[in-house]
Amino acid sequence: MKIDPKDYNPELEKKHIEPAIVNEAFSAAVSKTFPADRYTSDDEQRLIHSHGQTTSEEVYKVLYSRLDRYADMVFFPQSEDDVKQLVELAKTHDVCLIPYGGGTSVSCALKLPASERRMIVSVDMKKMNKLLWIDRENLRACAEAGIIGMNLEEMLNREGFICGHEPDSIELSTLGGWIATNASGMKKNRYGNIEHVIENITMVTPEGVIEQKDAFPRASIGMQPQNLLFGNEGNLGIITKAVFRIHRKPEVTKYGSLVFRTMDDGIEFLHKLAYTDYIPASIRLVDNIQFKFGMALKAHSQGMSAWADKLKKLYLLKLKGFDPDQMVAATLVMEGSRAQVAYQESSLYRLGKEFGGIPAGASNGRRGYMLTYAIAYIRDFVATFHAIGETFETTVPWNKIQQVYKAVVAKAAERHKECGLPGSFYVSYRITQIYHTGVCIYFMLGLYTKGIEHPEEVFAGIEHSLRQAIMDNGGSISHHHGVGKLRKDFMKDTLSPDSIEFLKKVKKCVDPHNIFGARNAVFADEE
Amino acid sequence: MKIDPKDYNPELEKKHIEPAIVNEAFSAAVSKTFPADRYTSDDEQRLIHSHGQTTSEEVYKVLYSRLDRYADMVFFPQSEDDVKQLVELAKTHDVCLIPYGGGTSVSCALKLPASERRMIVSVDMKKMNKLLWIDRENLRACAEAGIIGMNLEEMLNREGFICGHEPDSIELSTLGGWIATNASGMKKNRYGNIEHVIENITMVTPEGVIEQKDAFPRASIGMQPQNLLFGNEGNLGIITKAVFRIHRKPEVTKYGSLVFRTMDDGIEFLHKLAYTDYIPASIRLVDNIQFKFGMALKAHSQGMSAWADKLKKLYLLKLKGFDPDQMVAATLVMEGSRAQVAYQESSLYRLGKEFGGIPAGASNGRRGYMLTYAIAYIRDFVATFHAIGETFETTVPWNKIQQVYKAVVAKAAERHKECGLPGSFYVSYRITQIYHTGVCIYFMLGLYTKGIEHPEEVFAGIEHSLRQAIMDNGGSISHHHGVGKLRKDFMKDTLSPDSIEFLKKVKKCVDPHNIFGARNAVFADEE
Repeated sequence: MKIDPKDYNPELEKKHIEPAIVNEAFSAAVSKTFPADRYTSDDEQRLIHSHGQTTSEEVYKVLYSRLDRYADMVFFPQSEDDVKQLVELAKTHDVCLIPYGGGTSVSCALKLPASERRMIVSVDMKKMNKLLWIDRENLRACAEAGIIGMNLEEMLNREGFICGHEPDSIELSTLGGWIATNASGMKKNRYGNIEHVIENITMVTPEGVIEQKDAFPRASIGMQPQNLLFGNEGNLGIITKAVFRIHRKPEVTKYGSLVFRTMDDGIEFLHKLAYTDYIPASIRLVDNIQFKFGMALKAHSQGMSAWADKLKKLYLLKLKGFDPDQMVAATLVMEGSRAQVAYQESSLYRLGKEFGGIPAGASNGRRGYMLTYAIAYIRDFVATFHAIGETFETTVPWNKIQQVYKAVVAKAAERHKECGLPGSFYVSYRITQIYHTGVCIYFMLGLYTKGIEHPEEVFAGIEHSLRQAIMDNGGSISHHHGVGKLRKDFMKDTLSPDSIEFLKKVKKCVDPHNIFGARNAVFADEE
Repeated sequence: MKIDPKDYNPELEKKHIEPAIVNEAFSAAVSKTFPADRYTSDDEQRLIHSHGQTTSEEVYKVLYSRLDRYADMVFFPQSEDDVKQLVELAKTHDVCLIPYGGGTSVSCALKLPASERRMIVSVDMKKMNKLLWIDRENLRACAEAGIIGMNLEEMLNREGFICGHEPDSIELSTLGGWIATNASGMKKNRYGNIEHVIENITMVTPEGVIEQKDAFPRASIGMQPQNLLFGNEGNLGIITKAVFRIHRKPEVTKYGSLVFRTMDDGIEFLHKLAYTDYIPASIRLVDNIQFKFGMALKAHSQGMSAWADKLKKLYLLKLKGFDPDQMVAATLVMEGSRAQVAYQESSLYRLGKEFGGIPAGASNGRRGYMLTYAIAYIRDFVATFHAIGETFETTVPWNKIQQVYKAVVAKAAERHKECGLPGSFYVSYRITQIYHTGVCIYFMLGLYTKGIEHPEEVFAGIEHSLRQAIMDNGGSISHHHGVGKLRKDFMKDTLSPDSIEFLKKVKKCVDPHNIFGARNAVFADEE
């Protein structure tokens, strides 16, 4: 895949938008009930709130084409009472509400249903961004759901604390969005995934408020309604606040890295590590392709071939027996007390050695960790040169990692050829999370689409085939991005038919008139 | 409280039982559909299946009085198909089904609703006890839900594995019962509570089978129906099997103990420990009363005063400054690789020293851990001498541990006096689990009731008052025993009213005719 800087594919200067569908009675009630700063019908705001960040079906269509459906109003609640009143008005006037957090969904969960004939109001939670309280003695806090991850961390930092939940999207994504998506944090080994971070959730539904009276680290209270709210994807109501664990600022954060001869060596290392007591806050293993990609980004001013030569020389000399086209790297983030980090570091390098791993320095580790934040920007950049890129992830049992990877590459090759795409394709992967019984694999897919008609649809079709390949070989529908509309076809391979019916009935209990008509996951087929 | 060996209170020689309510059409269908070994109407079996192990409302009534309601038939399914067919017959003929695992419930979850006029069939899962498969590479296994914990461990042990989930009831309780109760294991620090152990659940409900197609350590699949099954307390259906994590047999299991001058010192030690990387598989802190009780049980042949003298001498000499009426003990179980256990042991004793703790040997630690298994037998023993004893537990934030304890003691004193009970009362506690934001407190309550009419009802009333005191002071309705019928009055203090309504609607979706009429937790008031 060649990217030619001169071959620029300019985005639409004026983005498309459709006239708003207006429910006059609802609009009148809104303007009577709320001050004018709570809502807008401004076209730019409507456009912004009409999509998430899924490449094929959302971003590409905004930049180069048009969306199927646009939000008709954007509402900015400032309190739980605002939310309750808005939900009441939506019920009274049969309006569709779409909760909107940071807008970072990559599952088409924020894509608006084309078939929705009612007025659609996007409920942007960004003004509900207060840190409500900190319980210093028991290490927990409560915040409004619209608080952005990075802002939450800053507020906690000022008080000497952190939350520690760091999804790739932390610059933009929100507390409420994390719960709705069932998010995973990069440092989950230390701080837990979102379901471990959260102790209480308050959700306003059309049939009332779901919440526990008190937050507890663990209790046996019969069936727990809040357990069903993780991964609700906007289908049930609006999360207004949550109680979550916090931690004292760690004494030390230390980066590190290890290089291994092959991906197999790296995987064996991870597998053994998963059963130790020195798992670092974050550990990620990137394959040879991403490793070289990372090195290329580093050698910014030298061009690809200069970099390749340098790398070759360096590693053939220093790392005897390491093949630059085979070697892989693990990036480490160790966090905690001095003693904890020291224990982790010495233990990790000792274990690494057992699998032929060689420490490759803190700066490589830090860059590897930070690169995550840049991926979405790189995607947007290459898109302007006729290349479509996307990441997608899955949970896979330990013994099926290579099987799933090989199936994805084979399927990509097959589909690339079938679709008659120019050049080559790019598939790489990294292992971003480790668990007792499996891992999270994060794939990157890149296709060069110059001269192809409706390239975003071709891309979406190929991505769909790759997901099928993943699931046929033992992977899950998603590890943390969620289902949304993008992966709806795979729910039947995820839950028993009766489980799907069960969820549909539950939805009817909480939201009998489908006010929350985002239509994600098992509800996506109801369009 | 004095226990006089001569003052024996003999249990009823012939236990009460009522004639069975028989639904003739159902009984005919059962005998036509199933072989005769699947079911019985034998009085002894009916009695055994008409209660759990709650002292006041169940055990005491069986021994000395009568239950309100008895099972009319006991059914022993041998396969998931048996369960499905039984549920179908129950639907057709409007019969009430009560899932029965090990029968160890202490929340009156197995108490049969007095108001139930339909035929009640207790569904004893003990014959569905197969270990179905072991996935050695990914460390998980699948078993039928009726398998008893201890048998499961034995089967896994033979293959070189353990499950590691060790509730106090492991000798009798079952995999399905653990899920239905939302159980906690004594070694949860290493192996997790039941919600961390389980990767997939299969439940047969009147409206179909709830399950995931595949087990994953973590996935984002939209709303997860199985998350609602933890703590279902028999209200929704019958769990037939589950997939769970297993572990290779640990290289080392090592016991240990630490004594501290005061409970406060011990609690501070635990609190600091909760944020380290060397938390042992199990750590429990017993208060001074339980500490002395444990020592008394040890000095079996010497009598109380001899033991007290010896203890006094020993500790005044050896542990200068330790007051035998103040000191407390922590019992430790460390498990894992040699290196892990060595790291934990040295770190634990170093941290203990910071809080004035002194190592008190492995045998004390082992005895302390094993004593847990004996508590229920001790209860049954003292019951025969006019003493009623019971344990009850709660989750409490770190900073409310002493507040909750003091409130319980004060309330016990007040109620003991009000009820005119003879002698004194016994309240002690231990901290059995530690978490980031709080702990599990386990109380023991003992009352001497000689000469009191309906002592079990007086006891139940006092226990109810103590739970109110716990909750008024920041404790939860339960940490792992569950709600059942015993604690139903406190659901309104646990969930928002709309959350309770939500659960009632969910129940209607899954079981519209209340076939699973156990009526626990939020359904207990529907009698």
